[in-house]
Amino acid sequence: MTQQGEGFRGIFAASLTPQHDDLRIDHDALAAHGHWLLDNGCDGLALFGTTGEATAFSVAERLEALEAVLDAGLPAHRLLVGTGCCAVPDTVTLTRHAVQHGAGGVLLLPPFYYKDVSDDGVFAALDQVIQRVGEAALRVYLYHIPRMTAVPFSHALVERLLTAYPEIVVGMKDSSGDGEHLRRMIEAFPGLSVFSGTERHLLGALQAGGAGCITATMNVTCPLAGQIFAHWRHDDVRPLQFQMGMLRETIESYPVIPALKRIMATWTGQSGWLNLRPPLMPLDDAAAATLLAALQRLNFFSAFV
Amino acid sequence: MTQQGEGFRGIFAASLTPQHDDLRIDHDALAAHGHWLLDNGCDGLALFGTTGEATAFSVAERLEALEAVLDAGLPAHRLLVGTGCCAVPDTVTLTRHAVQHGAGGVLLLPPFYYKDVSDDGVFAALDQVIQRVGEAALRVYLYHIPRMTAVPFSHALVERLLTAYPEIVVGMKDSSGDGEHLRRMIEAFPGLSVFSGTERHLLGALQAGGAGCITATMNVTCPLAGQIFAHWRHDDVRPLQFQMGMLRETIESYPVIPALKRIMATWTGQSGWLNLRPPLMPLDDAAAATLLAALQRLNFFSAFV
Repeated sequence: MTQQGEGFRGIFAASLTPQHDDLRIDHDALAAHGHWLLDNGCDGLALFGTTGEATAFSVAERLEALEAVLDAGLPAHRLLVGTGCCAVPDTVTLTRHAVQHGAGGVLLLPPFYYKDVSDDGVFAALDQVIQRVGEAALRVYLYHIPRMTAVPFSHALVERLLTAYPEIVVGMKDSSGDGEHLRRMIEAFPGLSVFSGTERHLLGALQAGGAGCITATMNVTCPLAGQIFAHWRHDDVRPLQFQMGMLRETIESYPVIPALKRIMATWTGQSGWLNLRPPLMPLDDAAAATLLAALQRLNFFSAFV
Repeated sequence: MTQQGEGFRGIFAASLTPQHDDLRIDHDALAAHGHWLLDNGCDGLALFGTTGEATAFSVAERLEALEAVLDAGLPAHRLLVGTGCCAVPDTVTLTRHAVQHGAGGVLLLPPFYYKDVSDDGVFAALDQVIQRVGEAALRVYLYHIPRMTAVPFSHALVERLLTAYPEIVVGMKDSSGDGEHLRRMIEAFPGLSVFSGTERHLLGALQAGGAGCITATMNVTCPLAGQIFAHWRHDDVRPLQFQMGMLRETIESYPVIPALKRIMATWTGQSGWLNLRPPLMPLDDAAAATLLAALQRLNFFSAFV
């Protein structure tokens, strides 16, 4: 992992956000999970991304949780903090706070309520955020996830942001799930740290010059991804990539965030991992049973626990 | 307009939110516009809907603006306040505040970030909001606007909410734009105040038993809609409906919120009306010129100013 003028590289889990039974964030469990991820193949963590149920928490809850995990020793420079909201003032509040607490970067969703908005409009939103935060240490990663936002970061928009803020806009998480889109982004913007939003494209992304991956399933498969990232230049890591792809495919055939929380609850024996904020709902027992059985057949638990 | 056990009825403007040049909400202009709307055909106002750029403002900005317009004399019982956010705690804060300040109702978006969520998940979100607000005076209007949210209020979900909270869930704004969907909602839920999100369907909605309309273009065409609502039972209001439809169609062929703000700026001579929060952007001058010319041809300005 390097981040000097350039952006992050490597394996990032889009961290789950564990919650108490009353759905407050469980700061201790979040910090403990973060430490486990960093000790097991992750170069960094994306906190408060889609997987982290970011939008389900108030600004105050997000500020408090970041401070709590930093107090618990998570290294700020390895954190990519999701701060993009629909309201520019909220994005400014979260972004400034993350930067002032030393976060290595922020992951910016575009304002995502309105559809069919222009590139000019999304540019204006990010421009206002960057100007109002006014911190030279700010490092922005663009969060392209049209399946949730329907507001894409087009090539033209990325180009314009890079031209306006070459020191600040340093990366992108491409969660389109489209390998071809990912490849074109990597090729078009060689100075940008482009992360795949799925580890299915991890090896391909690295071979094309991408930065790595930031994904939901890294919460549980990061040991494999860490090996791939460590060895892909010199060893044949295709069997590892294949194994990781099989796990992803299995987990992806369920609602991913509830499935991951169910896996964590099973792993850790801590039922609090089952808690989710609505509109997300826990897997029902039947789905959980087939998921866990499928993972058992892939030797998932014996490989990792 | 009645609201005793039943829900609202009539003509509601989804109020624009005027802003100072630094994009803070212009409380005085918002209150003045609200008074104008109520004096010119509107039975009530929806504050902080899609047209009001609700999601572009922080929770604190929304609380402050509501208090300011109430202080300026807007009647709370005629206000339908948009309070639905992605985060349940934010929705609870805004909803409780609106009810405690006497708002006649709240307009609830479902949590709108995640897609492909279950009816169970949306139900759980609204259930938590209603339980945590815990106010008997709460009146909820469901905001069905799949074009922005991609999270619909299905018939099954509406049924379930009505069964769980028959005194509280009293209405719906159907912004699907689909007349057939609107008709089916009105027929399926005769106890519910179902509003059309477009005045193109106003007369049809009223004839089918609907409650009226809550629309963006009511910011400028409410005098016509008010006449329709006053006279549709006994007079032939089809010419008025046709005229209103023509105006709607003209305005709708531009980005609606910027177009409406441009019209307001022209009407009032107050350039502050041009201000919008990104990602929305003002109409460019060429588009504004063709819009205003088209409205002129429809005698829009001579009819209303």
